[in-house]
Amino acid sequence: MEQLQSIERLSLNQITTDKWNLQEAVNGCVEAEIPWIALWRHKIDEVGLAEAKRIVKSSGLQVSSLCRGGMFPGSDERDLQKRIDDNKRAIEEAAELGTDTLVLVCGPSIDKDISRARQMVADGIEKLVPFAEQYGVKLAIEPLHPMYAAERSVIVTLNQANTIAEQYRPDQVGVVVDVFHVWWDPDLYNQIARASGRILGYHVSDWIVPTPDLLMGRGMMGDGVIELRKIRAAVEKAGYNGPIEVEIFNHDIWNQPGDEVLEQIKTRYIEHV
Amino acid sequence: MEQLQSIERLSLNQITTDKWNLQEAVNGCVEAEIPWIALWRHKIDEVGLAEAKRIVKSSGLQVSSLCRGGMFPGSDERDLQKRIDDNKRAIEEAAELGTDTLVLVCGPSIDKDISRARQMVADGIEKLVPFAEQYGVKLAIEPLHPMYAAERSVIVTLNQANTIAEQYRPDQVGVVVDVFHVWWDPDLYNQIARASGRILGYHVSDWIVPTPDLLMGRGMMGDGVIELRKIRAAVEKAGYNGPIEVEIFNHDIWNQPGDEVLEQIKTRYIEHV
Repeated sequence: MEQLQSIERLSLNQITTDKWNLQEAVNGCVEAEIPWIALWRHKIDEVGLAEAKRIVKSSGLQVSSLCRGGMFPGSDERDLQKRIDDNKRAIEEAAELGTDTLVLVCGPSIDKDISRARQMVADGIEKLVPFAEQYGVKLAIEPLHPMYAAERSVIVTLNQANTIAEQYRPDQVGVVVDVFHVWWDPDLYNQIARASGRILGYHVSDWIVPTPDLLMGRGMMGDGVIELRKIRAAVEKAGYNGPIEVEIFNHDIWNQPGDEVLEQIKTRYIEHV
Repeated sequence: MEQLQSIERLSLNQITTDKWNLQEAVNGCVEAEIPWIALWRHKIDEVGLAEAKRIVKSSGLQVSSLCRGGMFPGSDERDLQKRIDDNKRAIEEAAELGTDTLVLVCGPSIDKDISRARQMVADGIEKLVPFAEQYGVKLAIEPLHPMYAAERSVIVTLNQANTIAEQYRPDQVGVVVDVFHVWWDPDLYNQIARASGRILGYHVSDWIVPTPDLLMGRGMMGDGVIELRKIRAAVEKAGYNGPIEVEIFNHDIWNQPGDEVLEQIKTRYIEHV
């Protein structure tokens, strides 16, 4: 495994510095010499797409991904279509912002029928692929931790994500490996190998013990129990050598000054990722 | 699927009425005409094994299981042996208390190496089987939700539990299906079918939305999103017709008067389980 003595692949997923708006996050990365940033749509919306594009382009930063499309399951045909339309806007935004990767958080069940919701996810992706292709945008299915199955994503394993992605070419649909979501999976290394050639993102944080909260309990790399180097080695063996996003939901980290968080990220990234 | 118009298979897992001591829980079940109870070792310890045995036997209640053995991963040989010895005591206690089922919560990693911890679990069970057999006690591997991988159990899927259990005869080692822990699993119904003949327990509660807490966030049956009837049908199709334990970790429920909780359990059990 290549040892990361540089931060050339480091990307700030902007949710990690949630109190910063887009301009502040971009400035923070430039200042810290972090070359990549991952954008969230609600942060783009705050300034509008045109201004967001200007801010990003003029900074010289590269955009590793846009988060997020997905949320496919709907209550009826009209609702399902509304969700597809929103995903189309997300694809357009990704292309405008200069990234070829739209992260899909696939959505929860709208009732108790989780297998039906899973089918709705597959159907939604099927509908999006030709549209995304026109824009040169890849759909990156991110399996979420099973504890989010009821509220965020019925896609909870890399196995599921791979099974959907394999219906398409690797330049159409792939997967995101986020260590927080998949570290517990007994089949993790098989599934990473299976995803060879279609890993579209690698996200890092840590699983801290005790775990303070379902949503806001992620830790800084090195503060938890995840075998970060081992997983990264597997992801690289599977052919991924793109940006590595640091994505941390944690109020303690959000409450720290952003520039201090970025300095810590750089240190921990060299030491642990 | 048999519709449960009776509560003859209903078992109170005594953690559901955590504020009750053993005598109170036993009295509560007798009063409510709940025929089964599942016991926890720390509640037994409060009164001592002999007195616990007397309380249970004189009540006429049947004991569905003893919780818990397991916690196999240890830091060195001595620590590992200490854990085996504790499991042997748990087996003796199960036999004394009149149940043939010891639930195994297999334990977390003692360091970051989760695959090594998983091997320690398999090794620990291997060491226990002959001892358990002497006492007529079956080892019931309960996969826990992946969100507990770092603190309670590196066994997080029925697939893992089945793979270990299949090394033994069904009267030696089996699995527990707890809906809270496994409902999210895309492979759930395959794995329940695979467990045919070696399901040693079926535990119910619900997954409530929003989920308030990792440990204390379980809900009463009917208050959440789990397809209880569908899972029960699969478990019965796999040959399980034993007691159904209600096991709920939730401070709101713990703070209610126990007899009211038992009445609600009976109602919800008929309606939803």
